[in-house]
Amino acid sequence: MPSTSLAFASEAEHRAFLEAQSALPAGFRAGTTSLEFAPVEVPKPSRMRLTLLVLDRPTASFALKTTKNAFVGAPVVIARERLKGPRLGALVVNNKISNVCAPGGLAAAEAVCAEVARALSLTAEEVLPASTGVIGWRLPVEAMREAVPRAVAALQGRSILPAAEAIMTTDLYPKVRRARVGPGAVVGIAKGAGMIEPHLATMLVFLLTDLDVPREALRAALDEAVEGSFQAISVDSDTSTSDLVTILSSRVHPAPPEAAFREALSRVCRDLAEDIVRNGEGVHHVVRVSVEGAPDLATARGVGKAIVNSPLFQCAVNGNDPNVGRLLCAAGKYLGARGLALDPARIRMRMGGELLLEGGLMQLDPEKEQRLVRHLRAAELYASRPPPDGLTFKPPIAYPPHERAVELEVDLGAGAAAAVVVGADRSHEYVTENADYRS
Amino acid sequence: MPSTSLAFASEAEHRAFLEAQSALPAGFRAGTTSLEFAPVEVPKPSRMRLTLLVLDRPTASFALKTTKNAFVGAPVVIARERLKGPRLGALVVNNKISNVCAPGGLAAAEAVCAEVARALSLTAEEVLPASTGVIGWRLPVEAMREAVPRAVAALQGRSILPAAEAIMTTDLYPKVRRARVGPGAVVGIAKGAGMIEPHLATMLVFLLTDLDVPREALRAALDEAVEGSFQAISVDSDTSTSDLVTILSSRVHPAPPEAAFREALSRVCRDLAEDIVRNGEGVHHVVRVSVEGAPDLATARGVGKAIVNSPLFQCAVNGNDPNVGRLLCAAGKYLGARGLALDPARIRMRMGGELLLEGGLMQLDPEKEQRLVRHLRAAELYASRPPPDGLTFKPPIAYPPHERAVELEVDLGAGAAAAVVVGADRSHEYVTENADYRS
Repeated sequence: MPSTSLAFASEAEHRAFLEAQSALPAGFRAGTTSLEFAPVEVPKPSRMRLTLLVLDRPTASFALKTTKNAFVGAPVVIARERLKGPRLGALVVNNKISNVCAPGGLAAAEAVCAEVARALSLTAEEVLPASTGVIGWRLPVEAMREAVPRAVAALQGRSILPAAEAIMTTDLYPKVRRARVGPGAVVGIAKGAGMIEPHLATMLVFLLTDLDVPREALRAALDEAVEGSFQAISVDSDTSTSDLVTILSSRVHPAPPEAAFREALSRVCRDLAEDIVRNGEGVHHVVRVSVEGAPDLATARGVGKAIVNSPLFQCAVNGNDPNVGRLLCAAGKYLGARGLALDPARIRMRMGGELLLEGGLMQLDPEKEQRLVRHLRAAELYASRPPPDGLTFKPPIAYPPHERAVELEVDLGAGAAAAVVVGADRSHEYVTENADYRS
Repeated sequence: MPSTSLAFASEAEHRAFLEAQSALPAGFRAGTTSLEFAPVEVPKPSRMRLTLLVLDRPTASFALKTTKNAFVGAPVVIARERLKGPRLGALVVNNKISNVCAPGGLAAAEAVCAEVARALSLTAEEVLPASTGVIGWRLPVEAMREAVPRAVAALQGRSILPAAEAIMTTDLYPKVRRARVGPGAVVGIAKGAGMIEPHLATMLVFLLTDLDVPREALRAALDEAVEGSFQAISVDSDTSTSDLVTILSSRVHPAPPEAAFREALSRVCRDLAEDIVRNGEGVHHVVRVSVEGAPDLATARGVGKAIVNSPLFQCAVNGNDPNVGRLLCAAGKYLGARGLALDPARIRMRMGGELLLEGGLMQLDPEKEQRLVRHLRAAELYASRPPPDGLTFKPPIAYPPHERAVELEVDLGAGAAAAVVVGADRSHEYVTENADYRS
């Protein structure tokens, strides 16, 4: 099941699509607010958004996946605990600070949960916290507690779009996807644009459904959906300390057949994963690598990620330069470092359908070069524009103008395993974005 | 034994240093020439430089290390064969095309070796080929054969500097280092600026000595020297298909004590490795990570490389932005992915001597932030300048203006192993360089 790419002619058209996706499933309400605060760590005032996603009734059906980073945020530690608990009634999410390795971090996150619980007549254990933003800074607990009543007052049952916007950090636009299944729906929102392998400190995905899928089935379905979506993307190879994907069911509608639900959830996850990469920091080109003929899934995915994460290949793609030798270099680096005894003569590579490598030899000529350049240009989302100050590059558009990608195929000729990995190029806009992110 | 950094006030001062390093050891001659050719693969004329390093008498004392990439260039395949042979009499090196996976690549490299052998009264097996440049393109064999007599006519016994210049691709300046030992010397030249973990399609290092170190001792000494130098650097995490480090001895002077020779060779390799990073593509800051308290060497080096290869941390350093949470993210990504059961509470991190992380908590305040900014600014080699066309960034200087680095210390608190890894930031100049390298 491939992901669905999106293409729009204007920001307004994209906005209309988002609104059409955003109806909340039955049994949920969403509310957001913002707050000003002075960080303890730097001498500069800052602004944060606080978001609530609330169930009409606490649910036992929920599932959660968290980062593999060895350092994890306080909200991740707490979320892992909540996973063992009987019920969840609300999510509380803030951007700007990820609450990772910050003094008093666990107590701060718990204090915010307690405030939300008080306002919603829940227990603190029924509130799942999630945070994204700068690592190492402390949450402004008092200002957040004061903001909770404003977020509660903003709760409404119509649209998840304000929540999708409020959780953004460097995202250019909100990401909302939905799938209808029987009488109900699966609706998901995501934030994440950099520090993505599944990453600004980071990727958060919230999935809501009104279908009464029991806890264990929901967890199995989420495992499966995440594997083929968020585990198969990379913007910059940095795995965040705060990655978190969660799904809650309001259990309003009867469960559909398990396969139908799994397919719907996987679809929403793959589509959100595609959105995250296409909206990645400074992304000019989405790169899709389809690897087949691998001895196992790990090798298939490893080769794909080695290609999309090669800085040299990423820069070549950015310049619409079919320097396809770098493809080979990146794949060979991975295979060599892993000590895999593949026969280079059996490996085939294509870009945009053009054969690049076969029988251990590259197949290049001036006409093919021109076709490859056209393929790269067709996949470009936008070109860099000289910035007014000469140094600070900004993306000129904030919506996906087309759905095309640089299409790569690698056949390792060594087995039956296959994987699709989605990544991106490396641009001046990425360097600008990350050379001074916190300002 | 740390490497020695260099600092100069001008390109002329740097040039004087290079000339002072460049006397050829006894028993060697060097010659270079250039040639025009029309690549088969793209419709554009190109230019290549051909270099010979020749022994007065063929030697049995030589050693060689090659890339771990699974795809290797034809010259690497041949070089590995030559390693088993009885003697070497000459090296022939070209830039511009790396002769990797190119149709007829082995025959092309052998034809060039044969031409060199004919001109120097050697056998082809006594000639070691090395190539660097674009992957997948074919060598212009006829034009190279015609150029060989010109390179032979240019042979001289005074200076290795013309060779150090002729092997460059995107290098901003030549790299020459020497160490004197007893009556003789070890002199090394290196090319390499991108695709470095140990990489533009790539790193080549040629080491010459006139000390009569026997073959086996020479090979052991090279293994040791490479381990602590070229294996401990990264510009962009891309391992080239053509990496090659070789040493030849002319056996003119009696061998010094083994320890003295090893120390001299290691010194030259570490210094060249430092030069390669400081001259890396678009490098504004050298980053030196000292990891200690690791359970083993692989973990120590892995953590160091994960930090210097994190695109987000690299961009933050580029912007003199002490976004030190990204340090923690990068280390945690590596430790988490490897499944290493380290206790985050025992890990300590410092930048520029400032404590950043202890007891699982980051230690940040506005005054420390300012000191960290000063440390980053002090380590900056140059700042980006707005380019005339608004898009094409070029480094404003072509020599190392100071010897400072961003100094990071990581104590994992889990053992006795340690490693120093040297890497660099990520800049607009790197993106420009690699978005259209082949043009």
